[in-house]
Parts: sequence; structure tokens; C-alpha cells
Amino acid sequence: MSKFLTQKLQGLTPYVPGEQPKEREYVKLNTNESPFPPSDLAVEGASEYAKKLYLYPDPDLKELTNAVADYYGVGAENVILTNGSDEVLNFAFSAYCDKDTPAIFPNITYGFYKVFAELYGVPYTEIPLKSDFTVALNDYINAKGTVFIANPNAPTGINLTIDEIEKIVSSNKERVVVIDEAYVDFGGQSAIKLIDKYDNLLVTQTFSKSRSMAGARLGMGFGSKGLIEDLHRIRYSTNPYNVNSMTAAAGLGAIKDDKYFRDNCSKIIKNREYTETELEKLGFTLTDSKANFVFAKSDKIDGKTLYLKLKEKGVLVRHFDKVEIKDYNRITVGSIEQMQYFISMVKEILKEIK
Amino acid sequence: MSKFLTQKLQGLTPYVPGEQPKEREYVKLNTNESPFPPSDLAVEGASEYAKKLYLYPDPDLKELTNAVADYYGVGAENVILTNGSDEVLNFAFSAYCDKDTPAIFPNITYGFYKVFAELYGVPYTEIPLKSDFTVALNDYINAKGTVFIANPNAPTGINLTIDEIEKIVSSNKERVVVIDEAYVDFGGQSAIKLIDKYDNLLVTQTFSKSRSMAGARLGMGFGSKGLIEDLHRIRYSTNPYNVNSMTAAAGLGAIKDDKYFRDNCSKIIKNREYTETELEKLGFTLTDSKANFVFAKSDKIDGKTLYLKLKEKGVLVRHFDKVEIKDYNRITVGSIEQMQYFISMVKEILKEIK
Repeated sequence: MSKFLTQKLQGLTPYVPGEQPKEREYVKLNTNESPFPPSDLAVEGASEYAKKLYLYPDPDLKELTNAVADYYGVGAENVILTNGSDEVLNFAFSAYCDKDTPAIFPNITYGFYKVFAELYGVPYTEIPLKSDFTVALNDYINAKGTVFIANPNAPTGINLTIDEIEKIVSSNKERVVVIDEAYVDFGGQSAIKLIDKYDNLLVTQTFSKSRSMAGARLGMGFGSKGLIEDLHRIRYSTNPYNVNSMTAAAGLGAIKDDKYFRDNCSKIIKNREYTETELEKLGFTLTDSKANFVFAKSDKIDGKTLYLKLKEKGVLVRHFDKVEIKDYNRITVGSIEQMQYFISMVKEILKEIK
Repeated sequence: MSKFLTQKLQGLTPYVPGEQPKEREYVKLNTNESPFPPSDLAVEGASEYAKKLYLYPDPDLKELTNAVADYYGVGAENVILTNGSDEVLNFAFSAYCDKDTPAIFPNITYGFYKVFAELYGVPYTEIPLKSDFTVALNDYINAKGTVFIANPNAPTGINLTIDEIEKIVSSNKERVVVIDEAYVDFGGQSAIKLIDKYDNLLVTQTFSKSRSMAGARLGMGFGSKGLIEDLHRIRYSTNPYNVNSMTAAAGLGAIKDDKYFRDNCSKIIKNREYTETELEKLGFTLTDSKANFVFAKSDKIDGKTLYLKLKEKGVLVRHFDKVEIKDYNRITVGSIEQMQYFISMVKEILKEIK
């Protein structure tokens, strides 16, 4: 840190992404990546645009915006595209939180919400999950600030129903409610259909997981015309060319290849079910995950030890050093081969500790 | 705008990028793009990574960071890579300006500095250029805030020498000086060599222009270890995966292909000289541009009319509605064929108005 850094940023604790060790090959089940390559149409689109990099991207991203709007049955004025969904969440913190409008989110959720709140120096309230790890719905009714809920939540994978989301949104008409649907395509219900009815609802999604494009950085925000205008105002005041032209072309290809997308989501759901069944047989307790990961604890080995022993055996999962969830690990659902290997390593470890 | 937008952002005037009209094909000399395709190595690198998009980028961008550091003869700890150089400038405003540390920049310069200052709600002082459009060097000695200077400046193209830059940097040891070198490769002198000597100097560059990668969004910041740590702290608190993996791979290819880069820069300089000579013959006054654009006014036709008549004829240049420079147009230096076409259209227009 230099002596020049402004005071407000000196205490900032940055987000820590999942580890990406390079010293050996791992079965990587720690960052919720897809095990499947992106659609051929995405690869072709990106490669085609690689030749045209000398030109700036279209700052309005019209073609992709229209395609996304059509796909989700909304207007182009209801869509904003960003450099990963972290960016649209960032914009939302900047737009809708200030010292009089705190941010409100669960105490166990995506770690970036807290970082954004600290970045903007806005107060925030972390609402404890219920003891079964579900979001404490009633605590968000008539909230005293801007609500951020990941749905399905991370790292629990637990989903609120669309009716539950609507209860929160409809009770907060004077405040914005942000529903972060990074994991919605693996069995959740999207709130996009509610944006026509509620001008205070912002829904965010990403191409990273279900469309196998984590490396491309493409996020989406859906909301009323007014909300989307706000976010574009920030986009044009920070980085009007926030989405590069290869990523935009890849996104267009991915949106067009709907069958591939749906097939991959189905495979992940199937592999999740396999993983859950096998872990249950081994005495694990699991949440009811609707995401591309499972969240599991063993009655035989503590969370951190299991994480470390799996790493020794070449399998990376994610362990969070947070007291409420320290017994658990978050395990990304990959290909069936990856999950079989993971289960076999868990079996080995359980044998070793006997 | 929604009723939810925080008060501090309600008055924000976003940046306006150069127009990208779609209704017809233009000779586009308005956004300082390169007329040359990116290096084959860049295209190949990006295309290769398009197939691996299911994986997140390396958040440390180690391979490209090391390559950039080697190329510029600095350490990896002196380099940060960003989603275009707008992003590193954004980080610098966030890190080094606050209500007690205003931003200071020329009144005629890259339009985004003012937008960033307004975005962060920090006070700013615009220092008038001298009447010959040069930066008023003495006004930045012992400055009362964080200095931002584009060198060469835009849209004038005029360059400060390295000694002049050093005077500013050395007189401001308690404040950060940011030198924005987006256009340095077309005849300017880079201040990167000064970062070892001055811990308050941040130099920014971009792959957009001289490396033909405007569509990829790749910016660079160079500075002391402390400054770069500050900016990484912000990067990890906003978007740790800010540079996508295709862009990182393209950047690596571009850095490796040094001959192609140098040849293209030479061609632009040659085409700039051709354009300047031809415009002078037609009675234009030009600044001494060291950038990939010329800045020119005619004694026969006012700036806005020339811009509009060129547009009618299929040539886009950039006109700024700012009183001090309203007689001028900024004309990107493209291929020799583009510049010949541009000159022939100017000749037609001058004939028509006789």
C-alpha cells in the first residue's frame, strides 16, 4: 500500500477468488466452472471477432442486447450487459446504496456483497440465515435498505421460490431489491418475469456457469427501464466499452445454441444428483442445492481436513473459514468422470481416517 | 433515471464515445482506431483461448504481466493490467482523489477525466492550455492535488518531453502524478523509465491503438510497487477477473510480435506526415501531433461544417463542441488509402464552398 491511497480505501479487504494453483493438475471443483466447453457457435463467434480487434466494440452492444432481450422475453431497454455479473452488482451498489440507504444481505452469501459495500463506504446489515441455512424471508419484508439476495444462494445452493421473492420485492417498493441469479439455470426459478410488475427489481445473471463462459466475462442485468438507465449511466461514466467484442460475439453464439445450453444444464443436474446420492451414502449431510455445486458436511471428518486431504489427492473443493459453515465444503458439480473421481477420493480419505 | 438512484449520481454526465453509425459504411477516422488488423499471434492466442472459456481467467494474469514487465524493462510488481486503460484511470481516481485531494488536469484533454471526477464526487481543477494548445507546464509544479496529464495530449496530439514530465513529477512528491500514454507509441516519449526514481508516478498505456486491439480492451498501468498494490487492492475489490482470458492471450501474442507493432507505428507516422503535408497545402493549421491523429482547422470552413460535410461524403472525423477548439477537427490517421480518400473529400468540399 502506498502513502497516497485515500483513507476510505485503506481499510478495504478485497475479495479472495477460489485458488488457482499452477504447481500440478487438479480436478478443479472449487470455482463453479462448467466442465463443458462453450458452444461451438460461441467459439466461432469469438474467433471471427479476434480478427477485427482493431475496431472498438459497439458501446451499445445492440446485437447481443437484442438477442438476450428476445431470449428472455423482455425489451432491450430492460437489459444491461457487463464485464461479468460482478460488474452489474458493483454498479447496483454504486447506484442504490449510500449512507442513508444501507445494503442488506444474508450473513452467508456471495462474499463480494460485503466487499462492494466497503468499497463504497456504505453501511450494511448481514441478516443471519435460519438454522437450516435458508434465507430468513421475513427479515427482508419492509427492509431498511437495498436488498441483495443470491438465489439460489451461495455457497448453500438453497433456493427461494418465485412467490417468496415476490413477497420481498412487493414489500419494498421504495427500495431496490437485487436478485443475483448466477446459479439459476440449474434448477432455480428466475424472477425476470417479475420485472414488468415491479420497477424496484433488478435481476442479475451470468454466462460464466451455465453457458461455460467464465473466461469471457459476460454478465446481464434485467430490470425496469429506469433501473437499466441508471446502470447505463454508470457504465458510460466508468467504461463504455466494458464488454470486449470477442466476448460479445461469443455471447451471441451461446444464446443462439439453446439446445446445447439446456443439455449441459440437464447433465449438471444429473451429476449433482449422483454426487448427492453418493455423499449421502457416505454419511454426509447436504443442503438442497439448486446450483452447480453441492454443499456438504461429513459426520466423520471436519470440513477443513477434508478439503486439505482432497487437495493432497489432486481434488480442489472450496472451504470457507467462516464459523457457521466451517464443517462444510462447497463442491462444484463437474463431469460425471470428475464426480466419480471425487467420490472415490472421499472414500479413500474416509478409509484412511478410520 | 429511476427514483432510486443515489443523489450523488443523479447529476452525472456520462462520457460520450465517438459515434458508431450503422446506417452506412464510413471511412472511420473518428475513434483513433488502428487501420491494421491485430498481430496474427494475437488472433491465434485469442482463438485458442475461445475454446477454453469454461475456465476462469487467471486473476493474477501472471503470464501476460510477466511478458509486459519484461518488454518494458520493469518488474511484475510494477505492472497492473485492466479492462482497457479507462479502468486503470478509473482506479487511479478512486485511489488518489478525495475531497481533500482534488484532481487536476488540462481544460482540453481526454474527456473521461472530468467524468471520473464527477463519478467519485471529487473536486477538480481544469487548467487552461496555453494559447498554442501546449500544456501549461508551470501550473502543475507543486500542484494542489493529483495530476492527470495525457501525453501526448488529446485531442491536440501535442507532447511534453520526458524532462518536462520529470519536472512535474519531481515537484509533486507528496501527490500522485498520472501520465496517460494512450498515444505514446506514435512518436512520444514514455515516462515508464521514471517509475524507479519516483514512487508517485503512475503511467498508463493501452493496447487499443498501437497494437490494434481496441476491441479487446486491454490497458496497462506502470508504477512503484506501492502504487500498483493500491490499484490491485481496488481491482480485487471490484472485479478480480477484469481481463478476460481471450484478451489476455491476444495481448501476449501482440507483445511477442514486436516487429509487426513497430512497423505499424512507423506506417501511422508516415501516413500522419502525408496527411499533415496535404492539409497544409490546403491552408489548414495543424498542431504538432505525436499521436495517431491530426488536429486541424481550416481558414476556409468552420470545424463543424467540415465535419458535417465529410460525414455526408462518408468520412467520419471527430468534432468537439467546445468553444476553444470548435474550429478544429480531430482526424484519426488510418491507412494511406483512407487518408488519400479523406484528402480528396476535403478538396471536393473546399471546391463546393467556393
